[in-house]
Amino acid sequence: MLVVMKPQATPEEIQAVCEQIQLLGFRAHPMPGAQRTAIGITGNNGAVDQENLEELSGVAEVIRVSKPYKLVSRDVKQEDTVIAFAGTNATIGGRDLAVIAGPCSIESREQAFAVAEQIARTGAQFFRGGAYKPRTSPYAFQGMGEEGLKIMAEIRDVFGLRIVTEALDNESLDLVADYADVVQIGARNMQNFSLLKRAGRARKPVLLKRGMSATLDELLMAAEYVMSEGNYQVILCERGVRTFADHTRNTLDLSIVPAVRRLSHLPIIVDPSHGTGKRNMVLPLARAAAAVGADGLMIEVHHQPDKALSDGAQSLYPEQFVELMDEISLIAAAVHRSLPRGITVAEPTTAWRR
Amino acid sequence: MLVVMKPQATPEEIQAVCEQIQLLGFRAHPMPGAQRTAIGITGNNGAVDQENLEELSGVAEVIRVSKPYKLVSRDVKQEDTVIAFAGTNATIGGRDLAVIAGPCSIESREQAFAVAEQIARTGAQFFRGGAYKPRTSPYAFQGMGEEGLKIMAEIRDVFGLRIVTEALDNESLDLVADYADVVQIGARNMQNFSLLKRAGRARKPVLLKRGMSATLDELLMAAEYVMSEGNYQVILCERGVRTFADHTRNTLDLSIVPAVRRLSHLPIIVDPSHGTGKRNMVLPLARAAAAVGADGLMIEVHHQPDKALSDGAQSLYPEQFVELMDEISLIAAAVHRSLPRGITVAEPTTAWRR
Amino acid sequence: MLVVMKPQATPEEIQAVCEQIQLLGFRAHPMPGAQRTAIGITGNNGAVDQENLEELSGVAEVIRVSKPYKLVSRDVKQEDTVIAFAGTNATIGGRDLAVIAGPCSIESREQAFAVAEQIARTGAQFFRGGAYKPRTSPYAFQGMGEEGLKIMAEIRDVFGLRIVTEALDNESLDLVADYADVVQIGARNMQNFSLLKRAGRARKPVLLKRGMSATLDELLMAAEYVMSEGNYQVILCERGVRTFADHTRNTLDLSIVPAVRRLSHLPIIVDPSHGTGKRNMVLPLARAAAAVGADGLMIEVHHQPDKALSDGAQSLYPEQFVELMDEISLIAAAVHRSLPRGITVAEPTTAWRR
Amino acid sequence: MLVVMKPQATPEEIQAVCEQIQLLGFRAHPMPGAQRTAIGITGNNGAVDQENLEELSGVAEVIRVSKPYKLVSRDVKQEDTVIAFAGTNATIGGRDLAVIAGPCSIESREQAFAVAEQIARTGAQFFRGGAYKPRTSPYAFQGMGEEGLKIMAEIRDVFGLRIVTEALDNESLDLVADYADVVQIGARNMQNFSLLKRAGRARKPVLLKRGMSATLDELLMAAEYVMSEGNYQVILCERGVRTFADHTRNTLDLSIVPAVRRLSHLPIIVDPSHGTGKRNMVLPLARAAAAVGADGLMIEVHHQPDKALSDGAQSLYPEQFVELMDEISLIAAAVHRSLPRGITVAEPTTAWRR
Repeated sequence: MLVVMKPQATPEEIQAVCEQIQLLGFRAHPMPGAQRTAIGITGNNGAVDQENLEELSGVAEVIRVSKPYKLVSRDVKQEDTVIAFAGTNATIGGRDLAVIAGPCSIESREQAFAVAEQIARTGAQFFRGGAYKPRTSPYAFQGMGEEGLKIMAEIRDVFGLRIVTEALDNESLDLVADYADVVQIGARNMQNFSLLKRAGRARKPVLLKRGMSATLDELLMAAEYVMSEGNYQVILCERGVRTFADHTRNTLDLSIVPAVRRLSHLPIIVDPSHGTGKRNMVLPLARAAAAVGADGLMIEVHHQPDKALSDGAQSLYPEQFVELMDEISLIAAAVHRSLPRGITVAEPTTAWRR
Repeated sequence: MLVVMKPQATPEEIQAVCEQIQLLGFRAHPMPGAQRTAIGITGNNGAVDQENLEELSGVAEVIRVSKPYKLVSRDVKQEDTVIAFAGTNATIGGRDLAVIAGPCSIESREQAFAVAEQIARTGAQFFRGGAYKPRTSPYAFQGMGEEGLKIMAEIRDVFGLRIVTEALDNESLDLVADYADVVQIGARNMQNFSLLKRAGRARKPVLLKRGMSATLDELLMAAEYVMSEGNYQVILCERGVRTFADHTRNTLDLSIVPAVRRLSHLPIIVDPSHGTGKRNMVLPLARAAAAVGADGLMIEVHHQPDKALSDGAQSLYPEQFVELMDEISLIAAAVHRSLPRGITVAEPTTAWRR
Repeated sequence: MLVVMKPQATPEEIQAVCEQIQLLGFRAHPMPGAQRTAIGITGNNGAVDQENLEELSGVAEVIRVSKPYKLVSRDVKQEDTVIAFAGTNATIGGRDLAVIAGPCSIESREQAFAVAEQIARTGAQFFRGGAYKPRTSPYAFQGMGEEGLKIMAEIRDVFGLRIVTEALDNESLDLVADYADVVQIGARNMQNFSLLKRAGRARKPVLLKRGMSATLDELLMAAEYVMSEGNYQVILCERGVRTFADHTRNTLDLSIVPAVRRLSHLPIIVDPSHGTGKRNMVLPLARAAAAVGADGLMIEVHHQPDKALSDGAQSLYPEQFVELMDEISLIAAAVHRSLPRGITVAEPTTAWRR
Repeated sequence: MLVVMKPQATPEEIQAVCEQIQLLGFRAHPMPGAQRTAIGITGNNGAVDQENLEELSGVAEVIRVSKPYKLVSRDVKQEDTVIAFAGTNATIGGRDLAVIAGPCSIESREQAFAVAEQIARTGAQFFRGGAYKPRTSPYAFQGMGEEGLKIMAEIRDVFGLRIVTEALDNESLDLVADYADVVQIGARNMQNFSLLKRAGRARKPVLLKRGMSATLDELLMAAEYVMSEGNYQVILCERGVRTFADHTRNTLDLSIVPAVRRLSHLPIIVDPSHGTGKRNMVLPLARAAAAVGADGLMIEVHHQPDKALSDGAQSLYPEQFVELMDEISLIAAAVHRSLPRGITVAEPTTAWRR
């Protein structure tokens, strides 16, 4: 159920409608738009008394939503969601393409800073790195934990890069949200509903990766879980799905980008590193992702891929990442978007070498 | 790495080897077999000094394990794992087929008892029901929580049925382990590694459902996560995988049963209810599962499927479940196994109707 | 469109309705049932004048068929189609399970006879062998061609086995139909519509294998192509579909057996040899296929699998095939069907050894 | 087996090596490259006497090829295969992107010319249209047959467009090859090996569409079938594969483009119309295909999509196709390729309106 307010509705009127919804035992989600505000209603198993709400002051109309998702839908919010980061000009979902780059895992301070420096030099604005790693084997490297988070926080201070990193469970989520700028929920946890709800109570944007065999509806419903708890800053991410095809680790499904754009106001980015699993495919598929209309890219970069503790085979060498940024700039221009470039920090090299 | 003890090795010798392994900074997992004990070593990222261990008293040989899994492997333990339940003759993994039946969700005391009574009458020995439900939509019925667990504990007392129910997160797992006889990890959580580790510290057997697009190796590695924490009572469960085929909700992959049997000592059961999603297919696929060599079946039964709050379309009517038990008895005999039958409780009907 | 005749309709009335349908420019397909005859109408792109037909003598009703398939449907013919073979008691689709066994390819007279003799001894009634082989590589063994067909015809004479073999194109189909008792259309040709039409004009039953990624509807529509040309003797065959799962060559989808049985009167058999691609899985999956309700099995057997020119890894040794027949007998009894057994030819061994 | 000639080898020496290969009972496939000629040997089931060939005049080395494909491989021919069309500057596989556009089916002279005129105006150089249609249902429109071929030949004369159309069977292939400039083999026939061999004997380039569940190796081996018969002008085409994803008709697998480029010298184009099945996705996925490095695009266009006899829902309106050509021009420039534009025929409009 959705309450659409009149363009001239006052903040007080919006507030009054929300209170009335809560009085009825439901939850109100005001979503301000450029023209007018819509208020999503959740928590109603059955029908809400529609007429009652329609007569409140400032209400334009009340719409029954037949789709299983509400808050993620363009019906609720027509304008694209743009996620901004305080103290920077970095955004996800706006005209600029967002590039999130870094190693699969944080392995040491030296490794993380060496990669981060290379990334900062290309003008990318986001740094990714795993502190808690979901590994198929219990005997594989599981990440540095909080120590890794601290290294990334230092990278933010030194290079000005915003930090994206994954939370694996409820226990680590709060810690991750403390240190990071974006909390990542991995593909294997896309339907870990308990974790999604907890992420919905975090105060940081959530990057939600598509599950290996998740349908479009399931991806949107997972985002709905986060939003239903009050966190509306969700970024979707295509990272390849599992099929019979054996020339890549996963099959990157770029058609989900226009499909999401049609149904939802949320930004969607593409991860060609996990999406292909092969270094030599990252560049062409990154170009394709930019061309199809993605809002950003997530790219694995390592200064010594052959020595990486995880996913080395799909990590770019730093010089390949520079080439990627150059090529993506051209594609971005062709689709009337831009890729912010330029050294963000004047003298990054000496600051951290102690 | 695997230490195989001599058949005549004493408990003291086994203990001494375990202590030596721990002294080296690793974890020892003694796995007693019919002939001799094998000791799995985990926690070793690199090579363990093999010669050192081979010279200890009672050691027959030390084997490097090249497969990614160790404790789940038949190399470590040749005999089938049989899970017994104190105070009953019920087992999972032995000669008897285990039948786990019940509603998708516990909806009320009346509903749960009505279904449980019907199940007990057929001689099935395990009752399933969801108290915490993983639902695609945040607005769908999420289960009764602890109240549902209490109802199931009462069902155990009244009907003598052992209880199987799902834990969704670390928070609920301890509670579930308190009330239930078997803790279920659902398909969507098969690679929720944090939850798997927690389940590995529970004192109850764990029923691990195959993820929707999990390979055989991934399923075995998920079991390895549980076992690596010291809980060796793991039951695997095939419940259908996601494919292009649209005549069923999932495609039931029965070939995984002989594949698991070849590689692992763990029992594997089949869930034809989720595996097909259609009531009229449950019976033929249950027969096929018994014929392929599964150690048991997991079947959704509801006394009023049309009124079920979840998964009604795949739940059997009680009389269909009786027919299923009759047909499975015949198949079990054909594959030289047995299906325990008979009223387990003398007068179950009056005991709970208050 | 479907014309249902009254139970007491005379052959002359049925004939008159067919002639009227042809006068209207369409094609009539009379399908006699136990109670009454239904007449399928094909070739109508738009609507047929329904009232006209309903007033003809002997007509009970005229039904518009909304499903894309007509002649394969149980709406047209309620009774199971049973395919009989003149001069034998062998059937496909009746109470007896049909077992079709033999080598992947006919490699030589000696090889074919050696395998056929073993198969005849078990009481199986059908012999399979490839004379024209669809091979992924143009450089792989492509089959013996007509020479192979002649060897199989001789096997029929010596052992009394009915012959099942594949036709690859329109050119070979007529030749195959001359020599064989059943013409097989392979999985790769399931949507070779030109070949399906040609098979529809053959005077022999057609065994149609499911394509590697064919949906249920596509399989039924492929059978409809054959039937629409007037050949109503079609046997469907599940042989595994392509999925992400890597523990088998294909994923055997046994749920299609009850799905076909619900929608269609055509018999359906299962090929666990191609369905798994692994010798050690053929026996358990054959048991499962019999238990799920398949009308028969197609099994690869070779007297020297290690020397087979194709598909050796999935071919059973003769002694394994004997074991399979024994186990399937037990399962058949459990599902109230029978498996005909016994030496069909008194002294097969000396007859062919010249 | 592959014979690599010295750079300075004379035509006579090359000829002598080919003759020697044929004397040995094999088939020789000389493949001229920019630097030197390689000669593929096919027809050898076992080993060819390597030393014998190495000693012939002009031979640099003899290489055993371990991959299952030979003639499609970059090992045999390093330079990209560029397919040229006499009397035009149109190419497939060179620097220019090839755009093949037109309706799914030729429905009438008026429809075909109306669409062709629109396409010619955009500067696209290839016209596609089906005269023989592979349809899931035997009762659906099966194409106009030779009449459709004649209409397309007339379109070539009037508008200068090269004609691409599908052959369904051996019977129609010769006729199609007579009228068309490129013979298309459809996805359902990708492993119709009899048809592939016949296409290998045609004198026209062959456009080979990837099967719905074909692996990369299977696609290359299908091309090898065509080439092994002596026709080296093969164009590969990605058109989506079948997966669980339900937001598109097929899942377009763009990663196969760089994968093919690495292994093979053959050109590869992309069909986003069949690849998505949805009109609103054709444009973004066409951009992505150009960005990933495809050699061309195949696009369905219809002047009245709502009245199309087949595949209307995925056909672009003419004005959408103009937009697509404009956007693809920008992407082509970004990847350092070009898209030929401009009216190819001075006054196309009056020429055919009679």
